[in-house]
Amino acid sequence: MIIDCHGHYTTSPRQHETWRQEQIAAHKAGQSAPPRPTISDDEIRASIEGGQLKLQQERGTDLTIFSPRAAGMGHHLGDASTSEAWATACNELIYRVCTMFPRNFAGVCMLPQSPGVSPRNCIAELERCVLQYGFVGCNLNPDPSGGYWTDPPLGDPYWYPIYEKMVELDVPAMIHVSMACNPAFHTTGSHYLNGDTAAFMQLMSSQLFHDFPTLKFIIPHGGGAVPYHWGRFRGLAQAMKLPQLGEHMLNNVFFDTCVYHLPGQELLAKVIPVANILFASEMIGAVPGVDPETGFNFDDTKRYIDQLPLSPESLSSIFEGNVRRVYGRLSKQLEVQLGET
Amino acid sequence: MIIDCHGHYTTSPRQHETWRQEQIAAHKAGQSAPPRPTISDDEIRASIEGGQLKLQQERGTDLTIFSPRAAGMGHHLGDASTSEAWATACNELIYRVCTMFPRNFAGVCMLPQSPGVSPRNCIAELERCVLQYGFVGCNLNPDPSGGYWTDPPLGDPYWYPIYEKMVELDVPAMIHVSMACNPAFHTTGSHYLNGDTAAFMQLMSSQLFHDFPTLKFIIPHGGGAVPYHWGRFRGLAQAMKLPQLGEHMLNNVFFDTCVYHLPGQELLAKVIPVANILFASEMIGAVPGVDPETGFNFDDTKRYIDQLPLSPESLSSIFEGNVRRVYGRLSKQLEVQLGET
Repeated sequence: MIIDCHGHYTTSPRQHETWRQEQIAAHKAGQSAPPRPTISDDEIRASIEGGQLKLQQERGTDLTIFSPRAAGMGHHLGDASTSEAWATACNELIYRVCTMFPRNFAGVCMLPQSPGVSPRNCIAELERCVLQYGFVGCNLNPDPSGGYWTDPPLGDPYWYPIYEKMVELDVPAMIHVSMACNPAFHTTGSHYLNGDTAAFMQLMSSQLFHDFPTLKFIIPHGGGAVPYHWGRFRGLAQAMKLPQLGEHMLNNVFFDTCVYHLPGQELLAKVIPVANILFASEMIGAVPGVDPETGFNFDDTKRYIDQLPLSPESLSSIFEGNVRRVYGRLSKQLEVQLGET
Repeated sequence: MIIDCHGHYTTSPRQHETWRQEQIAAHKAGQSAPPRPTISDDEIRASIEGGQLKLQQERGTDLTIFSPRAAGMGHHLGDASTSEAWATACNELIYRVCTMFPRNFAGVCMLPQSPGVSPRNCIAELERCVLQYGFVGCNLNPDPSGGYWTDPPLGDPYWYPIYEKMVELDVPAMIHVSMACNPAFHTTGSHYLNGDTAAFMQLMSSQLFHDFPTLKFIIPHGGGAVPYHWGRFRGLAQAMKLPQLGEHMLNNVFFDTCVYHLPGQELLAKVIPVANILFASEMIGAVPGVDPETGFNFDDTKRYIDQLPLSPESLSSIFEGNVRRVYGRLSKQLEVQLGET
């Protein structure tokens, strides 16, 4: 089984995103949001069958761990109440996709974050999505301000309420920023990668995994700059008198394979232990289009991994075993979704 | 000849940094700064002979392109006038080092930047350092706020006055942030790398090299996350309907080799054309200490490059030729410093 741990619903029916624009416009005008639009099963089916499902079949993957569009989370827009309404709407759509295509998708929720608002306000939505919808994880935005980085670092007790709930529910978080509203950053070109690198260093500088030994994070986009600079991070850990980096970080931190060329994948597999690499593509996501150097889509990451000098056991870990281990509820949830209980 | 294009005066005599603290304390108290301290030639000599010069000899490099301590620039502290006084003091020390060790150091200046203050205010110091001190480049901070990214991106006309002067003087800029005052960022662990990646994407999204075809930038720390994600950036360029990335960027943008492990250096040399790679170590800098996996210093980057499968011609380009080409005034300046004019 090949499990892609990083997919977003980038093809959701148009009225969903239109409502979001109306919601934020209403908020700015000091008015109530309009009622949420009707979205039919047929519309959802069409958006998936022509998108993620089609690419799963073409690329030979089986299951996508699926969450709301990352850039669309827009935690910097509106306030805590608009974030809550938007997260609810987005997560409900993911649930409907997983219900309609139970063999192909497992759900991960976005959280109703808002800059300067305690992540405590995200607990109810996380609990609802995990316990009622059967979701297996969440996306956590380390910078709800959208590029101004005004919230405390991830090691700060500010974040502990959501970590306590994650541990209790046995769900990991993918650390994923959203759209940059700071003109210094290009959302998918620099803000995403910088969020990954900043988050890794925040975790590394913290006591977090001492306080929460079973807390698990996936750092997407191949870990930002981290594997390329693994020697730098090993050296910094040593200079900071931390334990060796593997021991200090790799029981709790995992990297996905959203790296869009073979040399990058080679580096990732060479530097990071196999047990810490999770297959992912973020297909129909940040980087569309066909690479003229290969004739295949940039984000068809399975093709790169198939070319790596890895044993069948290692490939199986990356494509399936590690994902099931890190997303601790996934295997049981799949039994439920496939009706095999 | 082996030229290290990225060295900072991290070992400057103690009274220099002490004065900086006094200067900022005085500024906060609304008082004048105390007079600058006396620093003797012997003190400078000792700080270099036991530091950069010793390592040059041990590691087999010949010349370091030398600039003030990057984290120490602290453009977010004080205001434009404190930045100007501090830049003057720092650049003067670099000049004294280059004068005392003309075979071993060529100068690069820091600029008196301040958040929200037009880079126009840096022109006089750049001109002074190049024309009076014989400096061959400058360090340009894309985020004088120290991690809040409140100034316009590098492609904005806001920055054009300093670019015009750089072109006129034929000096490149190394794009280098300074200390992070934002607790979200670790200065050398994430802010430096994120500054590199953000800057690359700012340049890529801009018309800058159309407007200044001969402008040259060095992106340090191996280009941040960029080479590891070269496929991502190629794909984004294509999606943005830009020219191919090589054509669009690589006449003007160069990467240094401050990557502190062999796999990272292998990736850099595999992905980025040799003509765009400049040898550098940032020794006695961000990452001190010996790598227990190799028994050599993390920042002894020459050792990694010596292990790469490159031709003697390619190695010569990386170690010398490219540096002389990008730092257009360097060869003549070395003739002056070596008394061979």
